[in-house]
Amino acid sequence: MQTIIKNIIQKNSSKIMMVVLDGLGGLPVRGKTELEVADIPNMDMLAQNSACGLHLPVAAGITPGSGPGHLALFGYDPVEWQIGRGVLEALGLGIELKKTDVAFRCNYATIEKGVVTDRRAGRIPTDKSRKITENLQEKIKNIGDVKVIFAPGMEHRFAVVLRFPEPLEKGSADIKDTDPQKEGKPPLDVISQTPQAERVAKVVEKLMKAVLDIIKKQAKANFILLRGFSQVPDIPRFEDLYGLKALAIATYPMYRGLASLIGMDAPSIAGDIKEEIDFLKQNYKKYDFFFVHVKKIDSYGEDGNFEGKAAQIEKFDRDLARILTLEPDVLIITGDHSTPSLLKGHSWHPVPVLLNSPYVFGGLCKSFSERECTRGELGIFPTVNLMPLALANALRLKKFGA
Amino acid sequence: MQTIIKNIIQKNSSKIMMVVLDGLGGLPVRGKTELEVADIPNMDMLAQNSACGLHLPVAAGITPGSGPGHLALFGYDPVEWQIGRGVLEALGLGIELKKTDVAFRCNYATIEKGVVTDRRAGRIPTDKSRKITENLQEKIKNIGDVKVIFAPGMEHRFAVVLRFPEPLEKGSADIKDTDPQKEGKPPLDVISQTPQAERVAKVVEKLMKAVLDIIKKQAKANFILLRGFSQVPDIPRFEDLYGLKALAIATYPMYRGLASLIGMDAPSIAGDIKEEIDFLKQNYKKYDFFFVHVKKIDSYGEDGNFEGKAAQIEKFDRDLARILTLEPDVLIITGDHSTPSLLKGHSWHPVPVLLNSPYVFGGLCKSFSERECTRGELGIFPTVNLMPLALANALRLKKFGA
Repeated sequence: MQTIIKNIIQKNSSKIMMVVLDGLGGLPVRGKTELEVADIPNMDMLAQNSACGLHLPVAAGITPGSGPGHLALFGYDPVEWQIGRGVLEALGLGIELKKTDVAFRCNYATIEKGVVTDRRAGRIPTDKSRKITENLQEKIKNIGDVKVIFAPGMEHRFAVVLRFPEPLEKGSADIKDTDPQKEGKPPLDVISQTPQAERVAKVVEKLMKAVLDIIKKQAKANFILLRGFSQVPDIPRFEDLYGLKALAIATYPMYRGLASLIGMDAPSIAGDIKEEIDFLKQNYKKYDFFFVHVKKIDSYGEDGNFEGKAAQIEKFDRDLARILTLEPDVLIITGDHSTPSLLKGHSWHPVPVLLNSPYVFGGLCKSFSERECTRGELGIFPTVNLMPLALANALRLKKFGA
Repeated sequence: MQTIIKNIIQKNSSKIMMVVLDGLGGLPVRGKTELEVADIPNMDMLAQNSACGLHLPVAAGITPGSGPGHLALFGYDPVEWQIGRGVLEALGLGIELKKTDVAFRCNYATIEKGVVTDRRAGRIPTDKSRKITENLQEKIKNIGDVKVIFAPGMEHRFAVVLRFPEPLEKGSADIKDTDPQKEGKPPLDVISQTPQAERVAKVVEKLMKAVLDIIKKQAKANFILLRGFSQVPDIPRFEDLYGLKALAIATYPMYRGLASLIGMDAPSIAGDIKEEIDFLKQNYKKYDFFFVHVKKIDSYGEDGNFEGKAAQIEKFDRDLARILTLEPDVLIITGDHSTPSLLKGHSWHPVPVLLNSPYVFGGLCKSFSERECTRGELGIFPTVNLMPLALANALRLKKFGA
């Protein structure tokens, strides 16, 4: 499909805005969902005059992670383009990744007589963990000609990026996890699964040795377990596919990282939705496509806080008024997945979406909610269809065939 | 899908009628679409008692040309079966194509000192262009053993078919356009891109020379630019796939040409919908499947004439009464794509469809329109699903598996 799109792209001066309310979809609690109880006059008005529907990020019954959810929104098949855990973790910790890099997740662990006795080193506090990791970074800057980047994380977690002098071949990160998954077992060796990964595995072994020389005297965090070796996929650039100069506006590093993986500009922003909209307004002239990511709705859903999630949705609806003054040619409001507070986590439910442009029917939904969107003109559809619909409504696609 | 269908086909005496109202779907203007304002009691009555829905000819957001739109209606994946521009042009000019043929589009152009100064030879009037083309046909009947067919077109345009003595291999038309696409550049050479195309390219070069010998003294039309070299695809016959003896009833040559590509009988008919229905009635006993093409609705849509398009839909609704007296076992009324007068051209919007048979639910739509069809039992579905649904409703498909 992306090949067809690429062949019929035409450019114009239209602006496309995709607002992603992370974890938007919910489930009824006492009869109504978070969206259904929230007072959202702006989104209700839009829904009445927009193409509405529900989209499925991966497939029926499949609960998407944030990576697959966003890739699908940007039109990339999330089954074809699976982003490794190490890469996602490094992106989430704010490291920009290149084609020269291998990333992996690490746990501090406790080892005694060659056996892992605690896979999380007693869940050491974040500040203590951070100090150890910063010390590692100070003492280990490279292994031979390979740059080593340590990224401190929460509690016992951190990430490592190995940056080689030149781009790596596909398969270079096919290395087995060293985490034995159970206490009472010895850690596993660093084993490469492809010839291309052998060189990387040797660097990892040397790095292990260097790290252990520094931490082996620690009481708890005297070992590290490695997981999720991965490299950035050779994924086509968003602008090359769609002819859209794109700006990602997100306060959380992982979403900026995902956007920058496909070549969007994704500068660091501090603050909340207010600061995001300020930034959007300052940069509106310079771009064709805007990905605006709103995080907090998901966080309350993950906490199982129904009222909190509904309140965050209401807060966004008030802020939305400032976005509407920009009058984008195509405005999409949706989520990357559902996060019902009932489930305290991501879920498989299709995600409500509204698409506003001059070229829709509208008039089919009374308000913006999961149930009202089932009446919409878009039906239930794969999330990857959203970008072609956005481009079509921006009149950026020529006819296919004569 | 076509393979499954082929294996479970059974024959009976049922009649399937597919009426294609070209460019049927529209968009609201002052709140209502062309279908919504049109007074169409016959189609409204049918919609109330039919399976309704909306179909997507190619994919979400993709605006189909007439070729892809019709192939999808006949159950052929329009991405797999892409019909070349030269072939479509020749079909549209009324030439029946065979497996021995290479077709291409030509422009009369003006050349000065080896440089193209006007790619359209001043858009010479159709009658003048036609005379030049007829003169070419008179003087050039073949190049060696290859028959040459000239088909005059509008203004500076015409088409040429090279008919070889035997069927051509796949790839025989892989020849680059000679149109430099911009004025001020020399025309490009005739370049074959596959070994199979070399022989055809040599014939084209000889033809070019023969044509230029005749027209080089013309003031404006002193050169020709060639584009869209193509051959008919090796596409399965409609009757072989579905066991249906099929009649195409269309007044425009291109639609007859498309139908004849897949082996439908597609005799030339003059006149309008009245003459089409007369012809349908005369031939009703002889066929199992009827493709009835109604062109004018699309033409008004292309002109941006909202009222004119609505009036044509109303006109068809009155004529429909005569079709209904035939009482086909399965009656489908739909379009090959949408042509909203708001957009003055084809669009990406899914196309409303009603399928009437004794084996549908009905009772879900109050009238026949884009928005009412969103409530229908067929949902939004790929256009290629329509033929299997037609066959099923005609009780022409056996059970799949035991």
